Amino acid sequence: MAFSPLDSDLLGPLFTTKEMRDALSERRFLALMLRVEAALARAQAAEGLVSQELANSIAGIDPGSLDIKVLAEQTRLGAVPVIPFVKSVQAMLPPDVAGGFHFGTTSQDIMDTAIILQMANAVDLIETDLRALLSSLCELAEEHCETPCIGRTAGQHASPVTFGFKVAGWCVAIAEHLAQVEQLKRRVLVLSLAGPVGTLTQMGDRAGAVVTRTAADLGLAVPAMPWHTHRSRIVELGSWLAILLGILAKMATDVVHLATPEVGEVSEPAVAGRGGSSAMPHKRNPVGSMIILAQHSASVGHLSTLVSAMASLHERPVGAWHSEWLALPSLVGLAAGALREARLLAGGLEVDAARMYRNIELTNGMIFSDAVAGGLAQAMGRAEAYTAVEEEVANVVRSGGHLRERLTKRFPAHHSTILQAFELAPAINAAASRCRAALISVRKQLA
Amino acid sequence: MAFSPLDSDLLGPLFTTKEMRDALSERRFLALMLRVEAALARAQAAEGLVSQELANSIAGIDPGSLDIKVLAEQTRLGAVPVIPFVKSVQAMLPPDVAGGFHFGTTSQDIMDTAIILQMANAVDLIETDLRALLSSLCELAEEHCETPCIGRTAGQHASPVTFGFKVAGWCVAIAEHLAQVEQLKRRVLVLSLAGPVGTLTQMGDRAGAVVTRTAADLGLAVPAMPWHTHRSRIVELGSWLAILLGILAKMATDVVHLATPEVGEVSEPAVAGRGGSSAMPHKRNPVGSMIILAQHSASVGHLSTLVSAMASLHERPVGAWHSEWLALPSLVGLAAGALREARLLAGGLEVDAARMYRNIELTNGMIFSDAVAGGLAQAMGRAEAYTAVEEEVANVVRSGGHLRERLTKRFPAHHSTILQAFELAPAINAAASRCRAALISVRKQLA
Amino acid sequence: MAFSPLDSDLLGPLFTTKEMRDALSERRFLALMLRVEAALARAQAAEGLVSQELANSIAGIDPGSLDIKVLAEQTRLGAVPVIPFVKSVQAMLPPDVAGGFHFGTTSQDIMDTAIILQMANAVDLIETDLRALLSSLCELAEEHCETPCIGRTAGQHASPVTFGFKVAGWCVAIAEHLAQVEQLKRRVLVLSLAGPVGTLTQMGDRAGAVVTRTAADLGLAVPAMPWHTHRSRIVELGSWLAILLGILAKMATDVVHLATPEVGEVSEPAVAGRGGSSAMPHKRNPVGSMIILAQHSASVGHLSTLVSAMASLHERPVGAWHSEWLALPSLVGLAAGALREARLLAGGLEVDAARMYRNIELTNGMIFSDAVAGGLAQAMGRAEAYTAVEEEVANVVRSGGHLRERLTKRFPAHHSTILQAFELAPAINAAASRCRAALISVRKQLA
Amino acid sequence: MAFSPLDSDLLGPLFTTKEMRDALSERRFLALMLRVEAALARAQAAEGLVSQELANSIAGIDPGSLDIKVLAEQTRLGAVPVIPFVKSVQAMLPPDVAGGFHFGTTSQDIMDTAIILQMANAVDLIETDLRALLSSLCELAEEHCETPCIGRTAGQHASPVTFGFKVAGWCVAIAEHLAQVEQLKRRVLVLSLAGPVGTLTQMGDRAGAVVTRTAADLGLAVPAMPWHTHRSRIVELGSWLAILLGILAKMATDVVHLATPEVGEVSEPAVAGRGGSSAMPHKRNPVGSMIILAQHSASVGHLSTLVSAMASLHERPVGAWHSEWLALPSLVGLAAGALREARLLAGGLEVDAARMYRNIELTNGMIFSDAVAGGLAQAMGRAEAYTAVEEEVANVVRSGGHLRERLTKRFPAHHSTILQAFELAPAINAAASRCRAALISVRKQLA
Repeated sequence: MAFSPLDSDLLGPLFTTKEMRDALSERRFLALMLRVEAALARAQAAEGLVSQELANSIAGIDPGSLDIKVLAEQTRLGAVPVIPFVKSVQAMLPPDVAGGFHFGTTSQDIMDTAIILQMANAVDLIETDLRALLSSLCELAEEHCETPCIGRTAGQHASPVTFGFKVAGWCVAIAEHLAQVEQLKRRVLVLSLAGPVGTLTQMGDRAGAVVTRTAADLGLAVPAMPWHTHRSRIVELGSWLAILLGILAKMATDVVHLATPEVGEVSEPAVAGRGGSSAMPHKRNPVGSMIILAQHSASVGHLSTLVSAMASLHERPVGAWHSEWLALPSLVGLAAGALREARLLAGGLEVDAARMYRNIELTNGMIFSDAVAGGLAQAMGRAEAYTAVEEEVANVVRSGGHLRERLTKRFPAHHSTILQAFELAPAINAAASRCRAALISVRKQLA
Repeated sequence: MAFSPLDSDLLGPLFTTKEMRDALSERRFLALMLRVEAALARAQAAEGLVSQELANSIAGIDPGSLDIKVLAEQTRLGAVPVIPFVKSVQAMLPPDVAGGFHFGTTSQDIMDTAIILQMANAVDLIETDLRALLSSLCELAEEHCETPCIGRTAGQHASPVTFGFKVAGWCVAIAEHLAQVEQLKRRVLVLSLAGPVGTLTQMGDRAGAVVTRTAADLGLAVPAMPWHTHRSRIVELGSWLAILLGILAKMATDVVHLATPEVGEVSEPAVAGRGGSSAMPHKRNPVGSMIILAQHSASVGHLSTLVSAMASLHERPVGAWHSEWLALPSLVGLAAGALREARLLAGGLEVDAARMYRNIELTNGMIFSDAVAGGLAQAMGRAEAYTAVEEEVANVVRSGGHLRERLTKRFPAHHSTILQAFELAPAINAAASRCRAALISVRKQLA
Repeated sequence: MAFSPLDSDLLGPLFTTKEMRDALSERRFLALMLRVEAALARAQAAEGLVSQELANSIAGIDPGSLDIKVLAEQTRLGAVPVIPFVKSVQAMLPPDVAGGFHFGTTSQDIMDTAIILQMANAVDLIETDLRALLSSLCELAEEHCETPCIGRTAGQHASPVTFGFKVAGWCVAIAEHLAQVEQLKRRVLVLSLAGPVGTLTQMGDRAGAVVTRTAADLGLAVPAMPWHTHRSRIVELGSWLAILLGILAKMATDVVHLATPEVGEVSEPAVAGRGGSSAMPHKRNPVGSMIILAQHSASVGHLSTLVSAMASLHERPVGAWHSEWLALPSLVGLAAGALREARLLAGGLEVDAARMYRNIELTNGMIFSDAVAGGLAQAMGRAEAYTAVEEEVANVVRSGGHLRERLTKRFPAHHSTILQAFELAPAINAAASRCRAALISVRKQLA
Repeated sequence: MAFSPLDSDLLGPLFTTKEMRDALSERRFLALMLRVEAALARAQAAEGLVSQELANSIAGIDPGSLDIKVLAEQTRLGAVPVIPFVKSVQAMLPPDVAGGFHFGTTSQDIMDTAIILQMANAVDLIETDLRALLSSLCELAEEHCETPCIGRTAGQHASPVTFGFKVAGWCVAIAEHLAQVEQLKRRVLVLSLAGPVGTLTQMGDRAGAVVTRTAADLGLAVPAMPWHTHRSRIVELGSWLAILLGILAKMATDVVHLATPEVGEVSEPAVAGRGGSSAMPHKRNPVGSMIILAQHSASVGHLSTLVSAMASLHERPVGAWHSEWLALPSLVGLAAGALREARLLAGGLEVDAARMYRNIELTNGMIFSDAVAGGLAQAMGRAEAYTAVEEEVANVVRSGGHLRERLTKRFPAHHSTILQAFELAPAINAAASRCRAALISVRKQLA
């Protein structure tokens, strides 16, 4: 089990992806911290604050040579891995330049910037998956733009839509979320380089230039002020991830219900061994949707942790920062896993259009009661029309039969009015046209 | 107590503002629902779907004439106030046009759009307060741009900053949050008009035009797809509000600590009766900050509710929508109250610059130990310098005295090097220059 | 809308009960604070600390004479309503005894004890409802102890159970929760009387006796230590309430699904106007379940607020206490409303036993595939049996027909083995016997 | 980083303990699943449902021989590790008995029971730590039962207490929580053995006996009904863990503040390298408290996840169960880590009694203003006394000096009355006596 299924050898492949696991590995994190220190040293060398030899030496260190076990023991004492990391790296540097290592900066700078670089990578992975998911869903929506499907409200049958229209709804939610990713990156992909209390005092008048150079080296933006204890950007990232999981959870909620045997309108993709039950060979569990729902649920708690951590004290926090570590990496892990499942779903969802059509008929025409009452009202007056329809609806509920037949029998003179009211076409056309319009705009965005 | 202090006659004035209370009152909500229906009817009349007389009649109804008690009784049955609202309004309309009222739309359209109009109002109130708060804080920061103040990390003294630098940190966090409000409005201030299942089938080929007209009438944007069960925008609004409360909670966290008697660097504004204690006349409780912290804490839970509600079923939700009602209005109520307190704080915070200066000296110069060791290292070699400083730090801790005096006594030859290392000026200048740069950019944004 | 639907004139009757609203009203809260002060004064008079006249005078004050508007204005300044409350009450007391009012205690004592008295009342209301709900559900379970119903896992058909078995599951969850209420009361219904910092210094050696007398007067227990900043009991109450809502949400989740038209096994009670839709006369929305689900969702956030508030500073909190006010009353309000809806459901749920039976047959016997394979295995060997069954399952999925018929046709010699495997009786008997055993134990507890 | 710091090689030793990590390891989990299957087979053999050889064969399997990588790959398909686990184990069993393996049970039974066994182990570890912590804190409280220390309310100085009284408050909170552990175990340490839909149909009339035997074998209780989708007990465990973290967070909140340099009343234990800062040798960060605060914050979100997961569908959940995996193990991991830090704190907290005494004097006697006004009131009348004291308090605030000197100078005739009012003894005695009483009861419980 491990503590988090995301990290578990047994459950990890179910809950997240190998790519994301690699992106957040400890080895890679150490390499990123080293990369940040190297970029800083290069910038400081360029500004004459440290020697060029130091910068070169840092760049030459193999992150794989750092001993995680040793780092971990000392991290337990100081609560921040950067402290032993700095010592270990210094021990690998030529003694005459080692003193300049980590000059003027602070643990949180190095670690926050390395986390940001991790997140840059993570967001890239997520963005790629989002685009692929969106592309698949567009195909699915297009294929079923005109496939009639009952619209459901409060769990009940309401009026017909098309399945493509439903999928286009998922698409637009995802597309609008994807459209925010550039702005999110501008907010989040930001250097932290501010020194112990945010003033970079030790770097003197070279501070600004060092910051600019380091940021450029790492491909990050320069923040307007130190953000050691101003964490909006972290919460914004967490919120974007949690909302992403919410969007996928909406899709999963729909799929779980459509895949129940009484509804039977879709099945999760048939993959050998997937969703199976040894005891019940006929059963195909909606495992992808289940996992997405679980991931969404857990993400809510992680976002809470990030928002709570905003109440951070003075120049550097007392615990609040550490609590972010317990939430943010999990959020990207969950998002990656949920997207993998969503892509599987989108790419192979089995749609039973015939069953969708039969389900529309399930309530014996009663979903058209309003339409037919409206139609008859023009012919015979509102009061009479509505009373008649209500009576026949009650008859259908009580004794069965189709509302259309009951009404044409009762009002043979209004045969064509009645038939017209029961026609699917207007609803289908309305849904299909919205579906198509949505797909055009989503595809334009994707292109 | 009422259930929510926000609604309590006793506690409401402490937790929120009268303006926000009015903005979210039931009467105003009914008026907004009526406004939405009127806009819809006007649009439908222009498109020939209903009579102009209907549109005029709706506009003529006094929302004050709706009987909330009656609406409430029926709301309890149908779970949505729009159902009895429609009946009540129809009963007030000329019978021959009443049938066209609420044509082709659905409860959730009317209610969601009315909520969006409420939120537009709420966000305006919040934005106004944010600007005023920011303006006050800029003045405070400017006044103390060069006021020395110890920088604190992990609750401990680290290195000096200035109080203005700290306040400028608050400013930038607020300014960056304020800068997002326009984009937030574009996302959130959106019409919901999609009919029972999102297709607006009943309006036929007039649907698009009706939507465009209604949106224009109400000053709202047109969404790309129905959002009855796609709730990202609601969560984005909730997230923005919760982050806002987090930003204010960071400020409050700082103030609570600075206002403790041992620190004594600031006091909340002296208002007669405010923060007082009958039993302890000397006491001035940081009541504004306390309330902000409580509000932040509660907001975390409300945001959770909104994120959870995203897993919404099919075309219209089964409970998820109702749970939003239990969270979103509270968030704006909390934000309004917290901003009121923050403005009071910002406008009248008492700053004791002398005490700030004394506190810098509290650790007998030990905050400069690194600087002085660095300085001496150049003169006598790193090893000797650091060993000597560590010994004298240990002496200060054990036996008192100031580190500067101990070192000048030990190394009279390095007198000037030592004195230089203990100078505040570099830290103060660095902090002040960052403070000034931040204020320039914030003020540019405010202008 | 008000801020919280619980407090709304329009939505309140939907989300909570009149009884709970009264129990938490401001008037009643003021009366409770007065009652606490009166009990304290009686105890202090008995111990000679204040005059008997003071105790009598307090008891004679009409809580209705307190001006909430005035209290509210001053509460806004001091952040605690007890401060103006004490002043207002003192002004009503004979001047020569007024000075002894509120002697040796502190705001939080009075308010926390009044809140505990509110909660005692609230828990009583909830307990009464829980018992009534449980009693109704026992009847429902008993009636359907043997009503066959498909068991569903991961949303799919698994094996048959009975509807009574399902309801007995709800019953046991509720009964076990109810069984904790006595212990909960012992933990929660506790006096707070500890003075400004918890030591009751001013009452000298009379402190213990005053506490004992006051607690006895109010029917509360005496805590082992002051709990101004030790809030476990509050969180335990909150947790018990949130779990209660979770238990009801499980029931609601089942009902919502069973009430979908494709399943059609239950309907929420038919009450005129309830769950109706003006546009769709055939529709009966599961409004009770919807509300319960929304209430559960909101309760999660409120519990978070309470847990967060535990990190409380020193002898009296800085904001954490105030955040409890934003969560605890809402939790009892939500619980009351959810129980009201659950009782409605339990008392009038419409069960369609015929439909349940038909749904069992929906998968054409495939739910018995494991049983029949097991049966045949004994006759013809495991390998052959399982292969044959899997082939016929595949045939059923592809071409329809009932698995039983296909198998009897394929293996006429094993006719009776096959028929036996498809019998419902073993599953029904197993479910019914568990149902009965559960009901016996639940009813024993209820009696 | 891994996804969760609890699982990280780098950060794990900081956030949790090796013992808890082992208790929750995948290897151990597989061994526990095997233990559950073995106990089940033994029970079934005793009841004649499977062969004794099967039972013996299972017991002979080495859990270390299971290939986690293979299990993980198939877990990804079926979403439950039990499915491939059963296949793998079956392949290791003698072919003629392998068919009886896992008879009549279901994945969730095996996994939930294994999780309960994990939790039994975890709760034992936690209970041991709690007792040790409590014992240390009792010693600390006893040592400082009479050490004067200012009581603080809303962050401000209120009246004196003793440091032992404060620690006794922590003790009682922990002791009361510990006192609940037996009842918690009765609720939580329960077998899950109910078969695919909760009826154990396949075991026929042997079901009850098999359940009783299996439970006895594993040392677990028998639940009244299946709890596959009735999850109160899991939430109760989660709630107990989160409250435990809240109790520790209250202690950490106190320590962080007392350890700030301006207060300086305590320091976290001096351990070489602990809490140090390479740049600032004088600095000792409260790292234990920081970590506890972070852990508390994260626990809130995990508890939310568990409460949300209660809304579980029908006989077996669709995602809700999986979301528990993402929360419950983390909670025990966080609790273990927080307890380790709390024990370190309790065992080595450095208390500066002299500083505590000086801090009491920090407000120049103003904390006694109420006492002295009360004393003088008896001599000169209330009005005159209070006015005089208020004037002198204002003078102290404005111009310094000690309130006692100012008053004795103003009222030389009341010299002894004034001196008496400023005496610490009454407050110290009251606090010490409460401290002692609390310790007696806590120690009785511990014994």
